[in-house]
Amino acid sequence: MKNRIRTIEVASHPGERVRIAGWLHSLRQMGGISFLVIRDGWGTIQAVAEAEVELAPLLERELSVESVLSVEGLVVSMPQAPGGVELHDLQVEVITPVTEILPVSLNKRKITANISTLLDHAVITNRHLERRAILRLSAGAMAGFRNTLIARDFTEIQTPKIVASATESGANVFKLDYLGRDAYLAQSPQFYKQIMVGVFERVFEVGPVFRAEPHDTTRHINEYVSLDVEFGFIENHFAVMVLLRDVIAGILETLSEHYMSELKLLRVQVPVVPERIPHIHFSEAQELIFNRYSTDVRGEPDLSPQDEHWLGEWAQQEYGSEFLFVTGYPMRKRPFYTHPEPERPEFSNSFDLLFRGTELVTGGQRLHLYQDYLAALEKAHLPIEPFETYLEAFRYGMPPHGGFAIGLERLLMQLTGAPNIRLTTTFPRDLLRLTP
Amino acid sequence: MKNRIRTIEVASHPGERVRIAGWLHSLRQMGGISFLVIRDGWGTIQAVAEAEVELAPLLERELSVESVLSVEGLVVSMPQAPGGVELHDLQVEVITPVTEILPVSLNKRKITANISTLLDHAVITNRHLERRAILRLSAGAMAGFRNTLIARDFTEIQTPKIVASATESGANVFKLDYLGRDAYLAQSPQFYKQIMVGVFERVFEVGPVFRAEPHDTTRHINEYVSLDVEFGFIENHFAVMVLLRDVIAGILETLSEHYMSELKLLRVQVPVVPERIPHIHFSEAQELIFNRYSTDVRGEPDLSPQDEHWLGEWAQQEYGSEFLFVTGYPMRKRPFYTHPEPERPEFSNSFDLLFRGTELVTGGQRLHLYQDYLAALEKAHLPIEPFETYLEAFRYGMPPHGGFAIGLERLLMQLTGAPNIRLTTTFPRDLLRLTP
Repeated sequence: MKNRIRTIEVASHPGERVRIAGWLHSLRQMGGISFLVIRDGWGTIQAVAEAEVELAPLLERELSVESVLSVEGLVVSMPQAPGGVELHDLQVEVITPVTEILPVSLNKRKITANISTLLDHAVITNRHLERRAILRLSAGAMAGFRNTLIARDFTEIQTPKIVASATESGANVFKLDYLGRDAYLAQSPQFYKQIMVGVFERVFEVGPVFRAEPHDTTRHINEYVSLDVEFGFIENHFAVMVLLRDVIAGILETLSEHYMSELKLLRVQVPVVPERIPHIHFSEAQELIFNRYSTDVRGEPDLSPQDEHWLGEWAQQEYGSEFLFVTGYPMRKRPFYTHPEPERPEFSNSFDLLFRGTELVTGGQRLHLYQDYLAALEKAHLPIEPFETYLEAFRYGMPPHGGFAIGLERLLMQLTGAPNIRLTTTFPRDLLRLTP
Repeated sequence: MKNRIRTIEVASHPGERVRIAGWLHSLRQMGGISFLVIRDGWGTIQAVAEAEVELAPLLERELSVESVLSVEGLVVSMPQAPGGVELHDLQVEVITPVTEILPVSLNKRKITANISTLLDHAVITNRHLERRAILRLSAGAMAGFRNTLIARDFTEIQTPKIVASATESGANVFKLDYLGRDAYLAQSPQFYKQIMVGVFERVFEVGPVFRAEPHDTTRHINEYVSLDVEFGFIENHFAVMVLLRDVIAGILETLSEHYMSELKLLRVQVPVVPERIPHIHFSEAQELIFNRYSTDVRGEPDLSPQDEHWLGEWAQQEYGSEFLFVTGYPMRKRPFYTHPEPERPEFSNSFDLLFRGTELVTGGQRLHLYQDYLAALEKAHLPIEPFETYLEAFRYGMPPHGGFAIGLERLLMQLTGAPNIRLTTTFPRDLLRLTP
């Protein structure tokens, strides 16, 4: 659109006539003066009409908010206006008229509708400034993730989402009809990213994963975006933890540098990532909980949310860190491809990263020797046949390797404090929700 | 892995002892001297063993190619060696031994296996230098695509791949069981990217799309990566064409700048993108074919591959351009959301981009008025109900907008001259192939 500038550029043109375009965000009339707020893809700007004739194209047709307008006006510095400038002496053109009443009001600071209405009308409610800010942070997180990895010579891969067998756990996969054959939706790119370590050594993928879990909680959705990393020639899982620290720091730096207005709007305090995130072994973590919180969870195969909460509290007090690695989870709670701890094979070379006392990322070192895979499958009572092509990678030489997966929506939920994970994605899929 | 450098860094360390690690790519013995080629994630390097004892760890266990090794050696400049340097005076450690014979040889310049064997063993054959180079160009194309758009203030989105109805055409979609309900895999993010123009104005997405087409050709796969763009406040489809030109140029510049060794290995001649790609209207294109090639295709609703070939030839001769836009395709061959040409509504504000005489990208301006959608659905004899949430975007104000979608694999196929689209992706899905 010719000569149009964006709302966020208006303040650099004081005293000039400029043209903006966007949605009529709000319209108030006070004592013969009309205040319009125009929203475009980046921000909002106030336009002031002192004569009714300036708004004739709107008023004659009784147009309502969300009409798409082009507004030409004089840029006037006005310290008390939001953004410090307003447009005066307006020339308004209607691009797309709207006369229908919105199902949910978009121009309040908070959406007042309940979450169900909000999600039913996500097509419209995603336009709300707070909703939009979260979704834009999502873009920033992806960019930060990729840039950190590309700077470390990682190669981006895209792996198939339609797979022949429900390989990883055998449960919780969506089944589909693939041209007359049974197939499944990938619940993670785990096997493919490992295989691709044999090609590129260092790989990452950003893509959808699918979990057919019939859970109806504030923390589950059935399709989400997984930020996956895998790389070779590591000593053990501590190399993976070093990289994960850098990736999290890279994501947060990207947000702090390029998404300040979104962070401010959402009142997000970006956490500081320590140069070295503290870590504690699973067994020591259980001892610590026993000693410090007088609760005996020693011998439990996993940590409960309460345990994680306590550990987060301890890391905050002991190290001033909102992040904590717990390493060495028991092998029996980890998938078959997990590498055991060499000296204590009942524990694993794996970790969880806790953020503010809640699990944020899981990762670890994987098995890399063919014989170890055969033994691990046998121990897990899993058949070899569905894993045959996966195993081919290990028959023909794989280096020690490991990686991790960050759930994009969960990261955003924990970062922004969103009360429901459904609010961190464009169009969530859950137990009941297949539209919009 | 400590002190390890990558093969591509060895040439910067002449006269020093360095350590590399990677796969045993080949091993030749000539007159008591052994020549090893080691391949890591980035390149290959030759290592020369003059005494048999240097290779004892390999020879004693009768290890074969693809064994993973660490090799320490002295960097010796050797103009006749590939890369100009070799390693001498070796110290070899076996990281992962391999004794099995490869199903397909990986160390010839070309893979000699037929395509079926090659794809059956993609887990291994993706390691071949030529295969790997194509897959790495894929990463470069994605990076170039994103960077070009981010520089133009586009926001990345992720939209659901599981959808409630087979919306776009009603055919050729994969059906799945979604927790007891029927659902489908998205055949494109078309509706969602349009909706998100109402949120961010300018959006792009890189993600999988799924087509249940039972075609067995060299140009079809059933899951591919779509590079999608959509943006608002355009005059017409020519604004979309200007952006597409910049995106293609951005992708090719990224490849030329950062993927030179892959382009060289694959002998790819990167095409020049003219500042302004020539364009011709569909009806004029048919006239031109009639006049120049004495074939009367006037009145046909679409262009045939032969027509496209002729037009490509003409653009090359007339403009010296390998690219040509054909605009104004008849409305009856375009989807219902296509914007008609205002003066001649039997034609559309849409285009194809031809590259070397073959369609590479399709795009255009979309309808943006609610009433126009209702009329278009009626004309196409489509029910309103499955489109209700999509239509909500247009009820509440959408600007004139348009966009395009680039098939990543098709782009790579045309760029590299790969004889089969299956060779441009990690693990293709086709009529018969669900693994690896």
